[in-house]
Amino acid sequence: MASTQSGAVANLYRQWRADPAPDDPIFDNRQWDVLTAEPGAVDYLETDADGSTVLWAVPHGCAADRVLLCVHGGGFIGGSVHTHRKMFGHLAKAAGTRALLVSYPLLPQGVHPAPVDQVAASYRWLLGQGVEAGHVAFVGDSAGGGLAVTAQLRAREWGLPLPAAALLISAWVDMEVTGATMRSNSSAEALFTQQGVRELAQGFLGGADPRDPLASPLHADLTGFGPLHLQVGGAEVLLDDSRRLAEHAEKAGVEVLLDVFPEQQHTFQMMAGRAPEADDAIGRFAAWVRPLLGL
Amino acid sequence: MASTQSGAVANLYRQWRADPAPDDPIFDNRQWDVLTAEPGAVDYLETDADGSTVLWAVPHGCAADRVLLCVHGGGFIGGSVHTHRKMFGHLAKAAGTRALLVSYPLLPQGVHPAPVDQVAASYRWLLGQGVEAGHVAFVGDSAGGGLAVTAQLRAREWGLPLPAAALLISAWVDMEVTGATMRSNSSAEALFTQQGVRELAQGFLGGADPRDPLASPLHADLTGFGPLHLQVGGAEVLLDDSRRLAEHAEKAGVEVLLDVFPEQQHTFQMMAGRAPEADDAIGRFAAWVRPLLGL
Repeated sequence: MASTQSGAVANLYRQWRADPAPDDPIFDNRQWDVLTAEPGAVDYLETDADGSTVLWAVPHGCAADRVLLCVHGGGFIGGSVHTHRKMFGHLAKAAGTRALLVSYPLLPQGVHPAPVDQVAASYRWLLGQGVEAGHVAFVGDSAGGGLAVTAQLRAREWGLPLPAAALLISAWVDMEVTGATMRSNSSAEALFTQQGVRELAQGFLGGADPRDPLASPLHADLTGFGPLHLQVGGAEVLLDDSRRLAEHAEKAGVEVLLDVFPEQQHTFQMMAGRAPEADDAIGRFAAWVRPLLGL
Repeated sequence: MASTQSGAVANLYRQWRADPAPDDPIFDNRQWDVLTAEPGAVDYLETDADGSTVLWAVPHGCAADRVLLCVHGGGFIGGSVHTHRKMFGHLAKAAGTRALLVSYPLLPQGVHPAPVDQVAASYRWLLGQGVEAGHVAFVGDSAGGGLAVTAQLRAREWGLPLPAAALLISAWVDMEVTGATMRSNSSAEALFTQQGVRELAQGFLGGADPRDPLASPLHADLTGFGPLHLQVGGAEVLLDDSRRLAEHAEKAGVEVLLDVFPEQQHTFQMMAGRAPEADDAIGRFAAWVRPLLGL
């Protein structure tokens, strides 16, 4: 059974859904990060990466030459390096690496392919700092989970080497929004409806083909990609996005690990430091990725 | 009239008061910092200061040898360097200095005089880092406002030089809880009641004399102290604490500036980056303290 603590995620999402545009100015940017405990012993340094603001999370005593490049979610309309600072801080601390939290333009500016271009550019910047591709793993949640795959496609187009691995949290990878769990999990899900996800996709695509591999990695050629670890909540309408991407990647010869966490909601890892399922998930990611980064 | 934005402070406090022990685990440490916008262009680095964890807030381009030593509030039972990270980050950014956010033991461990000893010890550590006393200003809000005065008394007892100035936000300086505004502002106040403040005082004192100058700076000898800038909300039951401390300090020959912000609540500066009154207050502090730090 899901822990009492992890229920806070569903509570927060139901509040958002009940009141999509709250009047109180303190909720102007969705206080998603209230879910996450402070990891502690992690420093945060903002810097400019070729014109884009990025945030380094530097756990004390980490292997500074190993980097998790982290792409926040938020349906292409919200989220930031700040909303996800603590969650990715927990992950970097557990993995013993630095984390580079990247930004990308949000809607209405950030129509496809602006976000994927920006994430790939931040990766190019990171490699330019002297970090080896084989010492980098991409991480992303939700919309950022899709970008953590598509940015690899773009980087490959640009002739850059691929990162060692990718960690995806509740990834959204199908802009057609056709997963069977869109309906079968509609009661269990606390945040999304199929209609709501379709509207987000429409805004993001701005008329582009929803089967464009750079928008929907479910249709991408993943041959040659590094190992992929997907985590998803069993209660999510997006559950099938992870399942289908796992199958698709395996067919392309990619090493895949898929964790489905029963009864958990979208990006439940936000409860890191507070709910046992979130800490378990973070711990599983860290243990899996460390040897792939040579740690 | 108070801005719409600043009303968020009262809303949050009324929620806390209505539900003092909420069931939801995400509220286990009072999400005070939801009020504050991210300042941006500020780095945060945690370090050990002789056994106590402190947080550096380092605005980009600041004068690194000038330091605001910041003591968070929370009634001696709550608050942390994390709840106050963004507010003190805004202040340091405006002042163009570093901020050192210090910790101290909270109740039930942190009975008087443990907090004042710890804050004074962190100041001693800071001076040991090579920062000149004349380049330091103390800052504190609420219970931390009292500590920003009493830690100077303790530091003087230890033979340390006093800091250049002090900035107090809604300071709580009277453990007898006798200010006339305890009653006259009881309807306007959103957070505290006289009875509630008395209970906090009792826990903090642990049997000590409420007129002990190291617990109630209203009874301290402030002769020789650097200039003092107090800010307080006009709606606070603690309003008279600031007024009385201002009078008391002036009698001791201290240069004093008292700003009363009409209709504002306790520590309304938490709305920095969101409410005009908070930004105005932060700007006034910064403009006042910079020349005192030789900037």
